Amino acid sequence: MKFSVEYLIRFQHCDPAGIVFYPRYYEMFNQVVEDWFAQALGWSFASLEARDEGIPLVHAEADFLASSQIGDYVTFELVLRRIGRKSFTVEITGTRGEEVRLRATLVLAYANISNGLRAISIPPELRERMLPYLEN
Amino acid sequence: MKFSVEYLIRFQHCDPAGIVFYPRYYEMFNQVVEDWFAQALGWSFASLEARDEGIPLVHAEADFLASSQIGDYVTFELVLRRIGRKSFTVEITGTRGEEVRLRATLVLAYANISNGLRAISIPPELRERMLPYLEN
Amino acid sequence: MKFSVEYLIRFQHCDPAGIVFYPRYYEMFNQVVEDWFAQALGWSFASLEARDEGIPLVHAEADFLASSQIGDYVTFELVLRRIGRKSFTVEITGTRGEEVRLRATLVLAYANISNGLRAISIPPELRERMLPYLEN
Amino acid sequence: MKFSVEYLIRFQHCDPAGIVFYPRYYEMFNQVVEDWFAQALGWSFASLEARDEGIPLVHAEADFLASSQIGDYVTFELVLRRIGRKSFTVEITGTRGEEVRLRATLVLAYANISNGLRAISIPPELRERMLPYLEN
Repeated sequence: MKFSVEYLIRFQHCDPAGIVFYPRYYEMFNQVVEDWFAQALGWSFASLEARDEGIPLVHAEADFLASSQIGDYVTFELVLRRIGRKSFTVEITGTRGEEVRLRATLVLAYANISNGLRAISIPPELRERMLPYLEN
Repeated sequence: MKFSVEYLIRFQHCDPAGIVFYPRYYEMFNQVVEDWFAQALGWSFASLEARDEGIPLVHAEADFLASSQIGDYVTFELVLRRIGRKSFTVEITGTRGEEVRLRATLVLAYANISNGLRAISIPPELRERMLPYLEN
Repeated sequence: MKFSVEYLIRFQHCDPAGIVFYPRYYEMFNQVVEDWFAQALGWSFASLEARDEGIPLVHAEADFLASSQIGDYVTFELVLRRIGRKSFTVEITGTRGEEVRLRATLVLAYANISNGLRAISIPPELRERMLPYLEN
Repeated sequence: MKFSVEYLIRFQHCDPAGIVFYPRYYEMFNQVVEDWFAQALGWSFASLEARDEGIPLVHAEADFLASSQIGDYVTFELVLRRIGRKSFTVEITGTRGEEVRLRATLVLAYANISNGLRAISIPPELRERMLPYLEN
C-alpha cells in the first residue's frame, strides 16, 4: 500500500531562479511523513509530542531529477522500505503527471525526547499500522 | 585544502523537541557552499545570478549523528570530492569540538538558468579556483 | 464578501516553546493572499510572475492574541480594507472556533519587477475582481 | 544606546523576484533580538529556555521602504522604546549605507512557557541591563 498526498508549489518555496529551493523539499518530506502519521496511521505528531516521543532523521538520500515551479501540484507517494526495532525507512517519490521530479529515502529513528533523544522500540500498535505500507 | 565556517544554532533553527529541525540543516549546507563560493572562490551567488547561472542540487546524502541545540556553535568543513565537466561533489562535515554532528555529500550541477536549467561546463577560472579544495 | 481558507499548524511551524514561531505566520499571511489571488480572483502568482509583476509588502501590522499549537486548524479570513490606484490593504483574521488568534493588516503595492519594483496601476480587470471583497 | 548587528542577505532569503521574501525579515527581527539578548544583555535564548521562559510577540508593525538583494549587507539597529512590567517594545531599523530599508516595532511579552505562556514580571537584573537601551 502507498500513502499519497498532493502539495501545491507556492511562492514561498521558490528561489531567485524561480524553482523550488531544495531545503523546502525537505520541509515537504517532513510534511509527507507527518500526514502519513496523522491521516493513515492515526498517530499524529501532536500525540507523539504528548508521549514525549519523536522521530528524528538519521540518514537521508535524495535525487532531484526535474525542477518544480510555482503553481505546480506535486504528488508525493510514500512507501515503507524497512521497519526495524527502533527505526524505519521510508521512500518518498514526487511526481507531476508522468514525470518523476524527485525521490528520497529517509531513515527515521523512534526516540524518547527528554531522555537525550535515545532510540526506543517502536510501539507495537504503531508497527502494526505501518506494516501494510511495507514494500521490499 | 578545506573551507571552514562556523554557524550559531539559533532559536529559528529549532523544533518543538528543542533540536535543529533537519530542513534547517539543508539551509546551512546551502550557506556553506554560498560562503565557499563568495569567500574562497571569489564567485559569489550574486555574480552567478548576474551570469544567469546557478548550481542546482542533483543528489544529496546525509548522516545525522548527534543533535544540535540552540546556542551551539557548529563548525562546517567543506572539501571537494569530485569535479566533473558540468557538475561537482562536495562533502560537508559539521562538528562541535571533537563531536561529529553530521556529514553530507552534495552533487551540484553548474547550469544556465533561463535555458531550462540545462547543465553547462564549469567555467575554467572557477574550476581552477576549486581545484585546491579537491580531496579524493 | 470574505475570502476564507483553513491551514493546519504543522511541526515545521512550531518553535522550542511548542507554539507557532511568528515568522511562520507571515508565511501564512503570504499564503492567504496567494490563495485569494489564485482561487478567488483568478490571478495566480504564477500569472503575476509571467507578467513580470508582483505585490511587494509595504506596511504590515499584526496583533498576536492567542498562541497556536501543532495540530490546530486555523481559519484565515481576508477582507479588502482599501484599494488605491497602485496599492491595496487587506485585513486577515485567524481564528480557531470562537477564539481570535491573530489579526493582521497588510499594505501591498502592485509593482513591475524588472523595472526596479516600481509601483504601477492595478490592472482594471483585477481591480474589478477585488472590489466584491471591499469592506470599509 | 543602540544595539547594532549586520547580516548578509543570502540566497535563502530571496524570492523569485530576487528580493528578500518578507517573512525572512521577520526571522531577522527575531535574530536581532536574540543577538541583543545574548551579546548585549547576557541573557541568551538558551538561558531563557532553561528558565522555562520566553518572549512571545504580541504586536508588530513594520514599514518596508526599499528592497534588499542577495549579497547586500544590512545593518540592523535596535533601541528600546518602552519597558513595562511584563512587556517591552523595541524598534529595529535596517539600513544599507545611508538608505533606510525597513523599520519595525515589536511588542514582546516576558512569559512563562509551561504555564500557558502567561506574562510574568521581567526579572529585575534583566530590566537593569535593558535600561541603557531605552530611548523615548
